[in-house]
Amino acid sequence: MNEFSLIDQYFKAVTHKRDDVLLGIGDDAACLKIPKDKELVISCDTLVADVHFLSTWDAYDIAWKAVMVNVSDMAAMGADPCWLMLALTLPEADSHWLKRFSQGIRDALDQYNMALIGGDTTHGPLAMNLTIHGLVPEKKAVKRNGAKPGDIVYVTGHLGGAAQAVYLLNEPNVNSADRAKLMQKLLHPQPRVDFNPYLREFASAAIDISDGLSSDLNHICTASNVGACLELDQIPIHPVVVQSRQDAIEFALQGGDDYELCFTVSSKNEGRMLSQLAQANMNAYAVGVIEHTPGLRAKQKNGLIVDLDIRGYSHF
Amino acid sequence: MNEFSLIDQYFKAVTHKRDDVLLGIGDDAACLKIPKDKELVISCDTLVADVHFLSTWDAYDIAWKAVMVNVSDMAAMGADPCWLMLALTLPEADSHWLKRFSQGIRDALDQYNMALIGGDTTHGPLAMNLTIHGLVPEKKAVKRNGAKPGDIVYVTGHLGGAAQAVYLLNEPNVNSADRAKLMQKLLHPQPRVDFNPYLREFASAAIDISDGLSSDLNHICTASNVGACLELDQIPIHPVVVQSRQDAIEFALQGGDDYELCFTVSSKNEGRMLSQLAQANMNAYAVGVIEHTPGLRAKQKNGLIVDLDIRGYSHF
Repeated sequence: MNEFSLIDQYFKAVTHKRDDVLLGIGDDAACLKIPKDKELVISCDTLVADVHFLSTWDAYDIAWKAVMVNVSDMAAMGADPCWLMLALTLPEADSHWLKRFSQGIRDALDQYNMALIGGDTTHGPLAMNLTIHGLVPEKKAVKRNGAKPGDIVYVTGHLGGAAQAVYLLNEPNVNSADRAKLMQKLLHPQPRVDFNPYLREFASAAIDISDGLSSDLNHICTASNVGACLELDQIPIHPVVVQSRQDAIEFALQGGDDYELCFTVSSKNEGRMLSQLAQANMNAYAVGVIEHTPGLRAKQKNGLIVDLDIRGYSHF
Repeated sequence: MNEFSLIDQYFKAVTHKRDDVLLGIGDDAACLKIPKDKELVISCDTLVADVHFLSTWDAYDIAWKAVMVNVSDMAAMGADPCWLMLALTLPEADSHWLKRFSQGIRDALDQYNMALIGGDTTHGPLAMNLTIHGLVPEKKAVKRNGAKPGDIVYVTGHLGGAAQAVYLLNEPNVNSADRAKLMQKLLHPQPRVDFNPYLREFASAAIDISDGLSSDLNHICTASNVGACLELDQIPIHPVVVQSRQDAIEFALQGGDDYELCFTVSSKNEGRMLSQLAQANMNAYAVGVIEHTPGLRAKQKNGLIVDLDIRGYSHF
């Protein structure tokens, strides 16, 4: 099988029909029509075997996660995901693996009415790069640099589950129901594009929590030239992590891979946001406040405020 | 050095200011404004160490080539290159390598007034994925599927030089002037975006010659549901290859990496195209004709027509 028959067999079928795809897979490039009242939002993420995923995972799960990690970057901007470029580097053209992988890509894209518009297949150590393209109404993209002192820091869901799952990969003696719940967080993250309308309307800054809350909130603070103080007992922690670990808060603060969002909202907008979220049966968690003083601090249960370590995941 | 300081130090400075980049490097995604009378053209290419380049090459040359390979995909569509996403996978954060590499990216982008708008850096075996974005006037993208029987097949320049350079990498006994000329073809390809206005106006189909003329022309034929006959003695071969090899024509037909263009033009349009090219002091080479019968054929000097092997480069 050469790269062209491989693309034909496994990936041409993935192309979802969207009217705005003027030319999809199979030419030197894809062509798109961008609506004139929208901005184009672009992000990419590379996933390397045994760095970002285990090569022993089901290829379906690898594909699902790879798409969702990218969709999460769109959610962090308040953008709707639309089109994907997929560059796949493979040590061999294994048809079982490719069948599972392409099925995972297809199912993940279908969930968001996204189209696969092109890519590249090359020979080499297992890795993939996905470049995702989305749309946001003009001037409505939510950036990292808009947080102001006094803004409230929110997260969209429970943290620490994926980090605990990574930890459990090396721990055989864990009950299987808990393991399954956590592996679901690690393998099947659900990016919070459901927050898009609320972020666009109310948020002053946003980021997705891929490297850990402390590290990612710190990116917002650095870009916005502010600091923040977190209230430790307000941080929502994944229930299995709370049950199983005394240092659960560390997993919630420093653990990556959850793909929830962290965003800031002014006190002026907070009430309207919460009321609209409640109407939609959605929930967000206030976990701290933006302050003038640079750096991250944490308020403990006893009222003491301590400086916060910013670790997160580092590639080098 | 972590991935964030690495991006700050080496790549933020690369961002070229373009008015249409609303948000560049440093957020979860980039934001662009696409002019309403243009289509967005997107392509990506992965380059893996010791598959697409040697890890011993100067990082400047690797970067240059990586950009140009992608620019060539834009040229194949008649599109103007504008924005680049760069995903870099590195075994280590080597500051000398990164300095050379980022300089190569900067110089290559400057040549086309392109902007680096984002990317990703990860730890792993040396590889890179570049996703390039360009613009083409509405309905003017040149596709692979428009070739018609009777159309003339053109190439934009001499072929075989890069393939001969690859061959010479393993041959120490070659005179150094010739080696330098050929390595220039391999390391510093010049994508033919200078043909954009002529392709958009006159071409019925186009592709860039990355895998070899026979393989790439065959892609046009397959997509257009036609065949072609090449006149072997009309194919322009790199002069050093002609001098040094009896099988020079094989290098021109089957050798990749030249990044010239192959395109087709109707006999109706041919005269006007040639006259406009002549006015611009440019040259293109008629090398064959599109035919009803599928497959590729070659007319030899003696007038005999033979079926043509389609080899090109295969990754698997």
